[in-house]
Amino acid sequence: MSDKDERLEAGREVVKAKEAKGLTWQQLADELGRSLVWTTSALLGQQPLDAEQAQKIGALLGLDEYAIASLSLPPVRGEQAMDPTEPVTYRLQEALQVYGTSIHELIREEFGDGIMSAIDFTLDLERVEDPKGDRVKLTFNGKFLPYKVW
Amino acid sequence: MSDKDERLEAGREVVKAKEAKGLTWQQLADELGRSLVWTTSALLGQQPLDAEQAQKIGALLGLDEYAIASLSLPPVRGEQAMDPTEPVTYRLQEALQVYGTSIHELIREEFGDGIMSAIDFTLDLERVEDPKGDRVKLTFNGKFLPYKVW
Amino acid sequence: MSDKDERLEAGREVVKAKEAKGLTWQQLADELGRSLVWTTSALLGQQPLDAEQAQKIGALLGLDEYAIASLSLPPVRGEQAMDPTEPVTYRLQEALQVYGTSIHELIREEFGDGIMSAIDFTLDLERVEDPKGDRVKLTFNGKFLPYKVW
Amino acid sequence: MSDKDERLEAGREVVKAKEAKGLTWQQLADELGRSLVWTTSALLGQQPLDAEQAQKIGALLGLDEYAIASLSLPPVRGEQAMDPTEPVTYRLQEALQVYGTSIHELIREEFGDGIMSAIDFTLDLERVEDPKGDRVKLTFNGKFLPYKVW
Amino acid sequence: MSDKDERLEAGREVVKAKEAKGLTWQQLADELGRSLVWTTSALLGQQPLDAEQAQKIGALLGLDEYAIASLSLPPVRGEQAMDPTEPVTYRLQEALQVYGTSIHELIREEFGDGIMSAIDFTLDLERVEDPKGDRVKLTFNGKFLPYKVW
Amino acid sequence: MSDKDERLEAGREVVKAKEAKGLTWQQLADELGRSLVWTTSALLGQQPLDAEQAQKIGALLGLDEYAIASLSLPPVRGEQAMDPTEPVTYRLQEALQVYGTSIHELIREEFGDGIMSAIDFTLDLERVEDPKGDRVKLTFNGKFLPYKVW
Amino acid sequence: MSDKDERLEAGREVVKAKEAKGLTWQQLADELGRSLVWTTSALLGQQPLDAEQAQKIGALLGLDEYAIASLSLPPVRGEQAMDPTEPVTYRLQEALQVYGTSIHELIREEFGDGIMSAIDFTLDLERVEDPKGDRVKLTFNGKFLPYKVW
Amino acid sequence: MSDKDERLEAGREVVKAKEAKGLTWQQLADELGRSLVWTTSALLGQQPLDAEQAQKIGALLGLDEYAIASLSLPPVRGEQAMDPTEPVTYRLQEALQVYGTSIHELIREEFGDGIMSAIDFTLDLERVEDPKGDRVKLTFNGKFLPYKVW
Amino acid sequence: MSDKDERLEAGREVVKAKEAKGLTWQQLADELGRSLVWTTSALLGQQPLDAEQAQKIGALLGLDEYAIASLSLPPVRGEQAMDPTEPVTYRLQEALQVYGTSIHELIREEFGDGIMSAIDFTLDLERVEDPKGDRVKLTFNGKFLPYKVW
Amino acid sequence: MSDKDERLEAGREVVKAKEAKGLTWQQLADELGRSLVWTTSALLGQQPLDAEQAQKIGALLGLDEYAIASLSLPPVRGEQAMDPTEPVTYRLQEALQVYGTSIHELIREEFGDGIMSAIDFTLDLERVEDPKGDRVKLTFNGKFLPYKVW
Repeated sequence: MSDKDERLEAGREVVKAKEAKGLTWQQLADELGRSLVWTTSALLGQQPLDAEQAQKIGALLGLDEYAIASLSLPPVRGEQAMDPTEPVTYRLQEALQVYGTSIHELIREEFGDGIMSAIDFTLDLERVEDPKGDRVKLTFNGKFLPYKVW
Repeated sequence: MSDKDERLEAGREVVKAKEAKGLTWQQLADELGRSLVWTTSALLGQQPLDAEQAQKIGALLGLDEYAIASLSLPPVRGEQAMDPTEPVTYRLQEALQVYGTSIHELIREEFGDGIMSAIDFTLDLERVEDPKGDRVKLTFNGKFLPYKVW
Repeated sequence: MSDKDERLEAGREVVKAKEAKGLTWQQLADELGRSLVWTTSALLGQQPLDAEQAQKIGALLGLDEYAIASLSLPPVRGEQAMDPTEPVTYRLQEALQVYGTSIHELIREEFGDGIMSAIDFTLDLERVEDPKGDRVKLTFNGKFLPYKVW
Repeated sequence: MSDKDERLEAGREVVKAKEAKGLTWQQLADELGRSLVWTTSALLGQQPLDAEQAQKIGALLGLDEYAIASLSLPPVRGEQAMDPTEPVTYRLQEALQVYGTSIHELIREEFGDGIMSAIDFTLDLERVEDPKGDRVKLTFNGKFLPYKVW
Repeated sequence: MSDKDERLEAGREVVKAKEAKGLTWQQLADELGRSLVWTTSALLGQQPLDAEQAQKIGALLGLDEYAIASLSLPPVRGEQAMDPTEPVTYRLQEALQVYGTSIHELIREEFGDGIMSAIDFTLDLERVEDPKGDRVKLTFNGKFLPYKVW
Repeated sequence: MSDKDERLEAGREVVKAKEAKGLTWQQLADELGRSLVWTTSALLGQQPLDAEQAQKIGALLGLDEYAIASLSLPPVRGEQAMDPTEPVTYRLQEALQVYGTSIHELIREEFGDGIMSAIDFTLDLERVEDPKGDRVKLTFNGKFLPYKVW
Repeated sequence: MSDKDERLEAGREVVKAKEAKGLTWQQLADELGRSLVWTTSALLGQQPLDAEQAQKIGALLGLDEYAIASLSLPPVRGEQAMDPTEPVTYRLQEALQVYGTSIHELIREEFGDGIMSAIDFTLDLERVEDPKGDRVKLTFNGKFLPYKVW
Repeated sequence: MSDKDERLEAGREVVKAKEAKGLTWQQLADELGRSLVWTTSALLGQQPLDAEQAQKIGALLGLDEYAIASLSLPPVRGEQAMDPTEPVTYRLQEALQVYGTSIHELIREEFGDGIMSAIDFTLDLERVEDPKGDRVKLTFNGKFLPYKVW
Repeated sequence: MSDKDERLEAGREVVKAKEAKGLTWQQLADELGRSLVWTTSALLGQQPLDAEQAQKIGALLGLDEYAIASLSLPPVRGEQAMDPTEPVTYRLQEALQVYGTSIHELIREEFGDGIMSAIDFTLDLERVEDPKGDRVKLTFNGKFLPYKVW
Repeated sequence: MSDKDERLEAGREVVKAKEAKGLTWQQLADELGRSLVWTTSALLGQQPLDAEQAQKIGALLGLDEYAIASLSLPPVRGEQAMDPTEPVTYRLQEALQVYGTSIHELIREEFGDGIMSAIDFTLDLERVEDPKGDRVKLTFNGKFLPYKVW
């Protein structure tokens, strides 16, 4: 099993243990003193965790030593990190398909020639109560980076 | 030229005329009484415009009759609507690659079995001033839809 | 083995046990008090089952504890859920290829700008007797969702 | 322009003329004495029309001779007939992704080794009124064809 | 190992046992009372075999119980059933590439709007002796199915 | 327009002229003194025609000089020669998918290590009358070519 | 012609005019007061030019007004900007294939969790004389961006 | 496990052992008397190592005999050597997308018809301190190879 | 029309003019004083020609000024230079598929770690008479380039 | 493990044993009384070996019985036989990309309508000494096969 598979497998162990213990992602986030989304993505495998963070989570969830060690392997951020055909994810892809050129155009008008960083970047997820059906609110917040001219 | 090409071409005419006249997307949005992102995506081709809306925008931008007629063709929301390899768009794709499973997992925990709609959906773009460099804030807001059990 | 493989494998165990016991999908559906298609797709892996539902089915089919536990893993709804080149499935793909634009056009005329939901959605399968050869009748029933204008 | 492009282009002419004249697909279907979905797909390019049928539709819609001639070119049923990334069509693709193996399994149980024809096949579309939001009902009806054993 | 892999693996066991015993496909076909090509494709995994047929073949070839059980798993007819880049298969693909439109055109002229079935279908393979080098003769025989008009 | 497009376009001109004149492919084949399938594929663009052959066909069909000249351009036998998603062609692809390994295996048993040529190859198409519905019979006849050992 | 095609076409006009006038990319860079690589990529279409810059270059190269206007269209940085199978470009792709994981690993060791920016980025190309054959030296210089932890 | 997987796996063993021992890639390079990047790519699997080199590294890192033997398997330089969707690597791909045609054009002007070798090639990675944020400097240095004319 | 299309189009003009004049590729090669294969590939678009070479060929073939100018555009060596599904080309691809690893292995044994250049490379094509049918002999001759170790 | 994997794995065993024993491919070829390239490709998995040939090689290399049995499994000639992105193989692919249309054109001129066989085909590899660097010479020799006209 490659490191990447090992790291992703550890993420699945976290999900199972979390559900068995009846814990929430917010409780895991509080344990690490990090935000909800960062913590979830770190435990699922997309952010680095050091040995101490891995131990804390392992203790809380009752993971074995192998899973704990796996949690501090390098993060997995390539294509294998998600399945674009999974329905929840696909809706977000489709939103980019529909609104992608508008986002590009509006950034160009407002900021000039450059991009919104996916590295100096945060993501928040919030439930918005609504009598017609509650809503999911995702906030993408990334630094604008101007293209260098030299 | 297919209807889709004609509609996208009209969007490019809008961009050129807008820049020539020194107008902003916000001014076009105000003309239609719609939000900034909806208006931009409608004019670029991803939302429907009726004949009256097309006339209003055409008058403001000085478009010819052909371009005005093209603006009320059906919207273009498939793959050809954007280029996923364009750098601004790619950063958003990469963010989904990195955070996709976390979003899925958090929606599952918070809302249960279902998705965030890309249809009953709004998107806002905002500039956040920051001394270390201004930031782009994108807010995706979609209704949660539970899978039907029958 | 990933969770997804485990869930799909459990589905194959169900098929084998069902055939060995001489049970029908309708009998399994009756056990759960759900419809035929929902039950089949839940047991094959595309709908969530809670622990109690998994136990009921496990008892009826004589599954081992591991398979029963696997049945309540999260559903698998991405690309790996089916093989588009399998002949039965391909005929349905081809029907969409042939009738897709007509469906789009007729929904647009009848309902306006929006889609037919695949989430608030039911599917039924029925045998229609016919002297020239019996027929398969599939009924797709999905809520119309209008695009939000904001 | 190839025959296929010419035939699809004629379909777009039909849509524009139909909207300009304020006619419905049902009225066009009545003119031909055919069903709603067959007529729509024939006019959009996926079923054959003979010269007489093309003339009738052309007269009703006021099409020019070139478009009328194009309507009786051979039908276009390959990949170029639709765009799988268009949101309405995608939802149907996703439904097949989620329910494809169930359909296969249920046909196998009920009918034995074979397929549901996409040729000896009809499709109906109906609006189902519902206080929680109207629904789209699609009925796929295809002859079961058993695999030949020889 | 999935059912499909298990079924295909059983087919490879058949080939090895057949070669070890010095039997021919025709002898296996005679054992089942079926044609040469149907039998070969059934044993390689593309047609269904019932328990009795699997036992007969197993006895003749000396297969173990696991392989015999695998032979009556559902047939595997999707993409994984063959490798299009294998040279024998590729020549047939290329023949379709070269003659595909002619076949389509000639069926249209002779039979009208419809297809040649791949389900109500037989295939024969014959050696034709020829002083300039023997030839392979493949006969594809499929029922013509007219498109339904409704 | 490239030579390939020009040659394929000439094939479409042939089809239209043939239908306008009420001629059959067999009559065109008789004019050239060639078989039905070879002639059809030559006129659609997949076999070479010399100037004299092109003139004969042109005279019979009343083609203009440009189309006649195009008919003797080099044949087009690559991927663009056909559309694998067109339903008639797809059925043949699927038959190869289902029977490809059997054909390979039977050629290996009967002839040894080698292939069936797609070059020293003929193809015939025949209508077989059948009270349960007429059938299409395609005969592929190719020389066996043994792999050279050196 | 889309804006992107128009911008890339203007780049080709620049190359032809430059060669006809016997100018070098360095002379064009000096005219703009920018570096060699930035100028080349701007004129070929990958960096923005304002109207004044376009006029300067147009005057120097004797371009017509249409080409000059095209030079200040938005830059084209997506997939269509280059052909990865062109041999010069392929060698660089292959170098990334061979050294990609090493670059990743060394950045991780030296800088920590983050990336090398492709936006706050410069590229230089230099000829290095060498008795065994001159060498091309490319220097990629990008700001390290640490992943944000929040 | 194929040789390629075995070689890449040995590379992952090196990374883990190196981190456990607190060594740097530079220390490993010094042990071999080679440059930093060559050593890293050799140990990760993209350059050949002889038995003696493998032993030296194995001794330093405390690898077992199996891992040491794996290190001298042939190098792995094909597609599986890296993941183009991994964010660090993607930035470099994007830089080629943006600057590829410029590099091609400038090599053509300066050197004539030919390529920059990826074989007679070195790569260096350096940290450039910068008050606005340190920078990664990559130097690609490849021999110019003119196309042979014969 | 892009430069690449223009260059490839000029190649097609050469083929037509050559056939109309009854000239051979060898005669064109003699005119340029170059080898047969280099000349053919240069005229079809894959090698550079200077203005004088283009004039010579243009005079011999009676090309117009536009075609002559097009012949000295930069060569086209990317993917669009050929069609891998064309049967002649495919046979060569298949030979690489079958013998690729052997070539790699034998070069590794005989020359060590490196490649056979496709740049310092010649190709010859010869007819070999043979009573059992004449043969095509292609000789690929490329300089061995060792991987640099640094 | 499928037969194909087993056969390819046996090829890797051969390479390791050959290197451990210090034998060359030529010595293995002499043992079989076959040419160098045929022998190499047979042992790597692309040509058939009978039991006696497998035993001879097994004895010479000291292979175990399982590997010897695997060597006489059917050859593997499909896509999985090689990796087109491996640098040695890629150079040959690129040569076909650059010279493919020329080879096609020259065969058409010299031999007429047909192909060069990849079955009645031999390949030789030779080292050509050269003071400027030794060269690899590959000779592809295939029978010309004319397209049948019928």
